[in-house]
Amino acid sequence: MQLLEDRILKDGNVLGENILKVDSFLTHQVDYKLMKEMGKVFADAYKDSGITKVVTIEASGIAPAVYVAEVLDVPMIFAKKHKNITMTEGILTAEVYSFTKQVTSTVSIAGKFLSADDKVLIVDDFLANGQAAKGLIDIIQQAGSEVVGVGIVIEKSFQDGRSLLEEQGVRVTSLARIAKFENGQVVFDQADA
Amino acid sequence: MQLLEDRILKDGNVLGENILKVDSFLTHQVDYKLMKEMGKVFADAYKDSGITKVVTIEASGIAPAVYVAEVLDVPMIFAKKHKNITMTEGILTAEVYSFTKQVTSTVSIAGKFLSADDKVLIVDDFLANGQAAKGLIDIIQQAGSEVVGVGIVIEKSFQDGRSLLEEQGVRVTSLARIAKFENGQVVFDQADA
Repeated sequence: MQLLEDRILKDGNVLGENILKVDSFLTHQVDYKLMKEMGKVFADAYKDSGITKVVTIEASGIAPAVYVAEVLDVPMIFAKKHKNITMTEGILTAEVYSFTKQVTSTVSIAGKFLSADDKVLIVDDFLANGQAAKGLIDIIQQAGSEVVGVGIVIEKSFQDGRSLLEEQGVRVTSLARIAKFENGQVVFDQADA
Repeated sequence: MQLLEDRILKDGNVLGENILKVDSFLTHQVDYKLMKEMGKVFADAYKDSGITKVVTIEASGIAPAVYVAEVLDVPMIFAKKHKNITMTEGILTAEVYSFTKQVTSTVSIAGKFLSADDKVLIVDDFLANGQAAKGLIDIIQQAGSEVVGVGIVIEKSFQDGRSLLEEQGVRVTSLARIAKFENGQVVFDQADA
């Protein structure tokens, strides 16, 4: 997605070896216009797939996911990373290891929001090692729902998340694919949409 | 807001003495249509206030806040509840005690996203004791920005959050105000919008 790649080049900051900071438009301050455009592109890619639910994970996935849900006219569910006293029963969980934060957390979705009739599009901000998306796929499959695809805003194509998901037979649609960081600059691969 | 009150009566669940669970449309599964309508109502209430930024706190505030930002055509910022390795410098913080979770957490916003020229509308899902909103006001004022108002989806009017914020001279706009829970049912006060 050209608009996104242009924005990454303009406002993204490469930190160290492999961190891209996009806190001015995605992960902290959010540009709703860009989110809305991304929502259209994701929704268009899956418009003939019969999607019934969009699933993301708190917190940076929520803004892009709700705009995808709007265009597809379906509910959005955000998985929880933290325990909540009002979540008491019927909770589906998966353990997710974050290489960035170096902690394992329990990701959860209330089972009542997913059924065997659901066809799910996962949306998330980043794909690197694929651990978060893998955890979401695990939870969605526990509910008997079908994972149709994973929509990613920014993929680090030099890490193995994409192949991990494709090995599970899940379609991956990334709006920006980073081939490498070179002298503190982002070098893109051809994106999926 | 009639649409919201009707939805709370239809799909909200009262747990114990003072917990209202709205996980089917706001705090876990999200109804984008309702978020969009709420965004319009909040934006209309502040359309003449010269708002330049909408600020919320992860995670349940993000979906309503981004739709407010869309109507007002301004950026949305979501404050972080957890430390992040890519947030390194110029971070403004406040300590926030959650009576629900019984923990104190450090809420933060990168100072570079707020300036003395900013007029801020805070948006959050719940107002009870007002601790989260108070922390956000503290951070926004540290940046030299003006807090024009606080837009709340569901206010527990029997707790003291509203008076705490109004004592600071901040306008509070709640779309649903809960007077009390009676026999497991929600009894509303007159809402602000």
